[in-house]
Amino acid sequence: MIASTPEPPYTAVIFTSLRTEGDHGYAVMSRRMTQLAAEQPGFLGIESAREDVGITVSYWADDAAARAWKQVAEHVVAQERGRSAWYSDYQVRVATVTRSYGPDGPR
Amino acid sequence: MIASTPEPPYTAVIFTSLRTEGDHGYAVMSRRMTQLAAEQPGFLGIESAREDVGITVSYWADDAAARAWKQVAEHVVAQERGRSAWYSDYQVRVATVTRSYGPDGPR
Repeated sequence: MIASTPEPPYTAVIFTSLRTEGDHGYAVMSRRMTQLAAEQPGFLGIESAREDVGITVSYWADDAAARAWKQVAEHVVAQERGRSAWYSDYQVRVATVTRSYGPDGPR
Repeated sequence: MIASTPEPPYTAVIFTSLRTEGDHGYAVMSRRMTQLAAEQPGFLGIESAREDVGITVSYWADDAAARAWKQVAEHVVAQERGRSAWYSDYQVRVATVTRSYGPDGPR
């Protein structure tokens, strides 16, 4: 699904990762984090795909909402597990979306 | 591959798409566009994955470099072919990366 986001500006968190071998509880936690993110204040949408690399982009009303999500207790536990078990490498990039357009023009 | 990007700020172009059925020359053009993007001034890196949705994030030194890439003639042709043949829907979001961190801390 392509996230249905409002007119910019808003915040995008681009999370790129390489997985380790094996599941180690990843699939369950990944689904849970997507569900939990969607319940947070300021959540706008999420897009995710994995081939050689995994890319998840979550969209937030503003930088404060993105920062708050990083601090949610259950998410903090998942981040720790990500560092220790699931990801051989990752990068998080926090960005301000300044313009957006699709087939029907700017949005 | 996770793109090796410098310290922020820099520009991220988040391209999310849904494919139509069939190839229609997509695979060849997709590889060509990745190669051509890498030759452009201000190109920093690219990450791409597709499952239900395709996500390609290209990174650029600044907004002007990202805009220039959008105008490269061969890329303009690919964009038109994308709208007419390859994508049932897409969204382009141009964003300024303000902070970034990985396993070893901020970058």
